[in-house]
Amino acid sequence: MNIVNTIEEVRDKVKSWRKEGSTIGLVTTMGYLHEGHESLIKRAVSENDKVVVSVFVNPTQFGPNEDLKTYPRDITRDGELCESAGASLIFNPEPSTMYYKDASTTINVKGLTEGLCGAKRPVHFGGVCLVVSKLFNIVTPDRAYFGEKDAQQLAVIKRMVRDLNFNIEIIGCPIIREADGLAKSSRNAYLSKDERKAAVVLSKSLECGKKALNSGERNADKVKKIIIQKLNSESLAKIDYVEIVDSLNLKPVSNIDGNILVAIAVYIGKIRLIDNFTFKI
Amino acid sequence: MNIVNTIEEVRDKVKSWRKEGSTIGLVTTMGYLHEGHESLIKRAVSENDKVVVSVFVNPTQFGPNEDLKTYPRDITRDGELCESAGASLIFNPEPSTMYYKDASTTINVKGLTEGLCGAKRPVHFGGVCLVVSKLFNIVTPDRAYFGEKDAQQLAVIKRMVRDLNFNIEIIGCPIIREADGLAKSSRNAYLSKDERKAAVVLSKSLECGKKALNSGERNADKVKKIIIQKLNSESLAKIDYVEIVDSLNLKPVSNIDGNILVAIAVYIGKIRLIDNFTFKI
Repeated sequence: MNIVNTIEEVRDKVKSWRKEGSTIGLVTTMGYLHEGHESLIKRAVSENDKVVVSVFVNPTQFGPNEDLKTYPRDITRDGELCESAGASLIFNPEPSTMYYKDASTTINVKGLTEGLCGAKRPVHFGGVCLVVSKLFNIVTPDRAYFGEKDAQQLAVIKRMVRDLNFNIEIIGCPIIREADGLAKSSRNAYLSKDERKAAVVLSKSLECGKKALNSGERNADKVKKIIIQKLNSESLAKIDYVEIVDSLNLKPVSNIDGNILVAIAVYIGKIRLIDNFTFKI
Repeated sequence: MNIVNTIEEVRDKVKSWRKEGSTIGLVTTMGYLHEGHESLIKRAVSENDKVVVSVFVNPTQFGPNEDLKTYPRDITRDGELCESAGASLIFNPEPSTMYYKDASTTINVKGLTEGLCGAKRPVHFGGVCLVVSKLFNIVTPDRAYFGEKDAQQLAVIKRMVRDLNFNIEIIGCPIIREADGLAKSSRNAYLSKDERKAAVVLSKSLECGKKALNSGERNADKVKKIIIQKLNSESLAKIDYVEIVDSLNLKPVSNIDGNILVAIAVYIGKIRLIDNFTFKI
């Protein structure tokens, strides 16, 4: 697998691909790739001539008490996964390559970033917008692929791309799950054996919510209550939030109508996991 | 002159130029073009195969009590100037083309935007960064040209381009002056006859400061005092600020060493004018 560390190497590759008339897909990741990332890369490979995967544990999207230092890393395994999935290039920069010491530019998407995960992670989405903008400007892809598991991130990126006129198509890809329903996440690696078993309650609780919606329930509080009840049945689970919001502007809804996002964040022991589904009427 | 109003028309043009292998220069303006803009366009024409001039009075860079509504506009004359200067295309969008009603993305450059003009114009540089980023993403130029008259804007844009990895060369162009020394500005059109005469005090005061520097004065307060004295000799002039700062990070300096920017903002009657020069040791 061709792994490069400098911006110049990426730009040179992109320039030569563009000369050939190739289209370019981008999958931005923090590495420790799993089948969720793999599905994004394969989708990108199927829709573009060349695919760049960025592997960068981005410091600006971690809060001071978050897991920047312990975030799992394995570039060798990531290289193998990218190779077999058909990627063309991995961009694996050092933090000092991406950020000058006196970096002073910030990007924020107001309104969409205050609720859900943003409420507890005030710097997170600013850091995401910043690094994604930088990667967009370095790789200049035609299409960029993001997982629907990070539903708020996907909505924020779509809004940023629209507002800043990036000429890039943003493609959301379905959540990939373990056999028991747990959404794939690099952070699942942190879970103990008991926690791993308990973590299935996230997807199970969402199934309960979905069932209520499919049965015609349109009162958001009632659907949330059903999800909360299921989550509370698991003693290792501690709810961060259970929210039902408009899919586009992420504002809470009380009566379910149009396109909605049902999103949850739950601590299993000390590990914070997220899951969600969208629902259309 | 080819004047287009939609983003799609610009993108189509740029795409066809790129197919031919043409390089592209961009001059972003708020219109009511004068010889200062003309010098930017001519420089761009000399260094690029195609040149796009954007003419857009950008609402997001005006504060609530500023002159958005009265800002002078004359697209017919602007078209003639662009034509004769050799520009390839004018992009003259409506505000509704540039900004969705629910636009929510902000860009800021911390540190460089708090002093000088930013102190009195708290939303100004955020609006500049936003519109310039959008224009960069719409036009995707190789080079973009900015006047040194707006010295803080030039420093902010350079920092933003570096921090966000825009693959665009930012070129600063010298201030163009009237015969008596007044820096060319669209806002000069607001001046009454008496105010126009009085306005020459800006450049004259800077000449006094430059003379002191050339004579070896290295105490910033003393140089500022000389400039302030000259400005105060004109009864129609009211100082907003007289500052001596580091050229790159715009932080005030007390002892003059390295590259500095001497910048002033002065009200002549109700009209706020700016001027500056840089000095290297």
